Amino acid sequence: MPDNSSPNGPKTAFALAPQRLTAFKVKGNVMISAKPFDFPYDGNLVPSATALLVIDLQEDFLSTRGYFARSGYDPSPLRAILPTVNRLIKAARSTGLRIIFTRQGYRADMADMTPYEKWRRARAGLEGTDILLRSGPGFQIVPEIDVAPDDIIIDKTCNGAFTYTDFEHVLRSQGITHLLLSGCTTDVCVHTTLREACDRNFQCLTISDACASGDQWAHEAALHMVTVENGIFGVLTGSGAVLEALAKLPAKYP
Amino acid sequence: MPDNSSPNGPKTAFALAPQRLTAFKVKGNVMISAKPFDFPYDGNLVPSATALLVIDLQEDFLSTRGYFARSGYDPSPLRAILPTVNRLIKAARSTGLRIIFTRQGYRADMADMTPYEKWRRARAGLEGTDILLRSGPGFQIVPEIDVAPDDIIIDKTCNGAFTYTDFEHVLRSQGITHLLLSGCTTDVCVHTTLREACDRNFQCLTISDACASGDQWAHEAALHMVTVENGIFGVLTGSGAVLEALAKLPAKYP
Amino acid sequence: MPDNSSPNGPKTAFALAPQRLTAFKVKGNVMISAKPFDFPYDGNLVPSATALLVIDLQEDFLSTRGYFARSGYDPSPLRAILPTVNRLIKAARSTGLRIIFTRQGYRADMADMTPYEKWRRARAGLEGTDILLRSGPGFQIVPEIDVAPDDIIIDKTCNGAFTYTDFEHVLRSQGITHLLLSGCTTDVCVHTTLREACDRNFQCLTISDACASGDQWAHEAALHMVTVENGIFGVLTGSGAVLEALAKLPAKYP
Amino acid sequence: MPDNSSPNGPKTAFALAPQRLTAFKVKGNVMISAKPFDFPYDGNLVPSATALLVIDLQEDFLSTRGYFARSGYDPSPLRAILPTVNRLIKAARSTGLRIIFTRQGYRADMADMTPYEKWRRARAGLEGTDILLRSGPGFQIVPEIDVAPDDIIIDKTCNGAFTYTDFEHVLRSQGITHLLLSGCTTDVCVHTTLREACDRNFQCLTISDACASGDQWAHEAALHMVTVENGIFGVLTGSGAVLEALAKLPAKYP
Repeated sequence: MPDNSSPNGPKTAFALAPQRLTAFKVKGNVMISAKPFDFPYDGNLVPSATALLVIDLQEDFLSTRGYFARSGYDPSPLRAILPTVNRLIKAARSTGLRIIFTRQGYRADMADMTPYEKWRRARAGLEGTDILLRSGPGFQIVPEIDVAPDDIIIDKTCNGAFTYTDFEHVLRSQGITHLLLSGCTTDVCVHTTLREACDRNFQCLTISDACASGDQWAHEAALHMVTVENGIFGVLTGSGAVLEALAKLPAKYP
Repeated sequence: MPDNSSPNGPKTAFALAPQRLTAFKVKGNVMISAKPFDFPYDGNLVPSATALLVIDLQEDFLSTRGYFARSGYDPSPLRAILPTVNRLIKAARSTGLRIIFTRQGYRADMADMTPYEKWRRARAGLEGTDILLRSGPGFQIVPEIDVAPDDIIIDKTCNGAFTYTDFEHVLRSQGITHLLLSGCTTDVCVHTTLREACDRNFQCLTISDACASGDQWAHEAALHMVTVENGIFGVLTGSGAVLEALAKLPAKYP
Repeated sequence: MPDNSSPNGPKTAFALAPQRLTAFKVKGNVMISAKPFDFPYDGNLVPSATALLVIDLQEDFLSTRGYFARSGYDPSPLRAILPTVNRLIKAARSTGLRIIFTRQGYRADMADMTPYEKWRRARAGLEGTDILLRSGPGFQIVPEIDVAPDDIIIDKTCNGAFTYTDFEHVLRSQGITHLLLSGCTTDVCVHTTLREACDRNFQCLTISDACASGDQWAHEAALHMVTVENGIFGVLTGSGAVLEALAKLPAKYP
Repeated sequence: MPDNSSPNGPKTAFALAPQRLTAFKVKGNVMISAKPFDFPYDGNLVPSATALLVIDLQEDFLSTRGYFARSGYDPSPLRAILPTVNRLIKAARSTGLRIIFTRQGYRADMADMTPYEKWRRARAGLEGTDILLRSGPGFQIVPEIDVAPDDIIIDKTCNGAFTYTDFEHVLRSQGITHLLLSGCTTDVCVHTTLREACDRNFQCLTISDACASGDQWAHEAALHMVTVENGIFGVLTGSGAVLEALAKLPAKYP
């Protein structure tokens, strides 16, 4: 196994070998093996209280002509997680977990855009385009991702899905207390949303190989940060462990 | 003038005779005469920092077949303010104030509706209808109201427009610090939004004859409450005073 | 019974005859008889998920030399509810409900006070005093009220207890979903907090004779508003009904 | 210069050589040289609208017997920034910037602590201690840091200073729109607060050598993340550039 972690930091194996962590049953309950401890901590994985969160898998981030590519980033790492995310969606749906997608973009009327953001937008050569606007085609979730009619979609302007949206309202209305996080980018929107969720006392599990960033260092460091201070941002595991655990739950839709 | 105020409370003349309050110029600035003090308190009415807020003038509240009428309320007092609100919209638009409309309704997917709200909905005989849903025709602003393409629309589930929405984000992004409130109902959505705005330090003026409720007592009391404790919820005036002040501002669109 | 309600509004009997509403048992559960429907709506009163909220019973509002009296209001109606609130506190404590007190006041360093609020403060003749500051004696809860060491105290600047405080954090951390509201003033801080709580989907019951205001019209109208639109701000009852229901719960501390 | 950045990520020179970035004057305005662009972007550094934010420099994080050391981290990197932070405090104070300190800790009554947090606390061997409680000595800012009577202190439970606190209220009341961030830890509380501030449209500059973490990899990566996507979390510079810029401002207290 090549050592491509930072020479200054502790080794993280999650981005490299997520399949090693496996789900197991304790006292009749389904848990997901994770670091630094298994999920949920109290051994009580309740499908109706758990949501799979899929963050910002939109054309603006994944296509070769969207915002992300035009900002100088390679979207291929983002595209590479799509099959994994779809496997998670399929497993989550069949066991009764809610699937929640977020989409990032400014309002079509740009009423939520400050002069500073207009300046940064012009600086990036995006002035006059519909990139990152909700009215543009780049706002749509990529067609490879399986969005069903009863999935929940949260539109947001901010990096954090809780800020100036109805995300928390929806979660609490639905009785959702546990979140499995996936999507892009690991270091920006996934991590900001994860931090907000932890501060609001949601139980969080980040799925390492279902998240991606155009900046590999930032991606790996963001995954590493989940585990500092004994799980200050919840726990981390790979999609294999999640899928194995979900397979042990009774199927809602056989 | 008939005395139809509560025998227990101080007299309020605002709902009855708003035209008595007039705009006047102090030291070159335009102010709006109001109670318990003129608006803005520092004599500095800046059109670009001021918005006319028009709350929930939707079919579900104003039509004879909408939520409000089906709940046993007479929507005619709500319809009666439409000409006044349109006069305010016209004057605000011509002087460069932003016009912000709110619309109340649950998400079409009802993901923001709790079991309690479903129970209350069934109790009111609304189960199975699209009343109060964003996907229903009742969610639309009534056609009598003049909505322009560059007006801002805020959709909300709650009575308070600040809660679980991007309303505050939009206000701060646009540099709006002063709000002129109109719409329905005075005692529920107008007052909840007014209270939220005051707690967030927006400068607020409620326009008595541009607000309405199906419950006349609640309407009058809500207007009276604006003025308790020396203006704890900002100030109160009539549309006449607002129109007179706006007429003194230089026209943006002659 | 004297008719002192507004001639324009429907009669409200709650402030006058709260003792008529009584608690009763349905299917083994304890419910509180209330208008427009009993509380909780699903018949499930869980002491550990319920809190008695006691709002702003501080010297600044109740004493004859505090903010409220200096603003021209008579604090006697506020003092009159103290025995009722203490009876509720005693009953709530003995059955395991949490007691949560709020206190309103600006930070001692006044960092949360805007120029507008300083202007209003000077206008009311309070400049240079420690009235409404957390460092002043007026900030303290009046000694007649029974505060125990394990009660929770929330300090706030705003009228709404949810705004810029840890109130929601505490409620959700403690698993509290149901609130019984008391305190002062009915029309300002009680109602703003009630509106915020309802928008956040807490189940709310306002106790009519455990709330008070210096403005009788505003007090009565605020109670009436709880019941408009079939309970848009939860339900309303008197302390008698609450005490009767709590007496049916098993005593936690006999 | 030793290469201690991640082999996967772009090089970041900020943690290593902050002194290279210098303040310069453009068109009479004072700007701070930063990456990826100078601060503030519009060349308008207004002392009264700018605050130096000093995050969580408390005994619990810096002492050898506090929470951080007991969690297995070396607090020396945190102690090492104290002289730099004091230099910034002195310069900020003399030019009229507000100094805002945050302190992290649970309420003394632990009402803001969930069962999960109690479990994690017990797992870390902290049960029964006053570590991370506001009533404990570890909650205090270390005596080496120069806190003045008119500085502002924000107490928080969460990693993000905006969540369930009056931080935003204070900032907006004071008219503060620009934040210079320092403190610990870079990857947890500094970054969460930074992300919240950016989403709320505050202009942010992170001072690389005035921030620290017990995890060097996480520290460096957190600084690097500030600059991804052309400054998605504002800009980054060293204390030298900040001090040089502040020296060009007129002294408020000579």
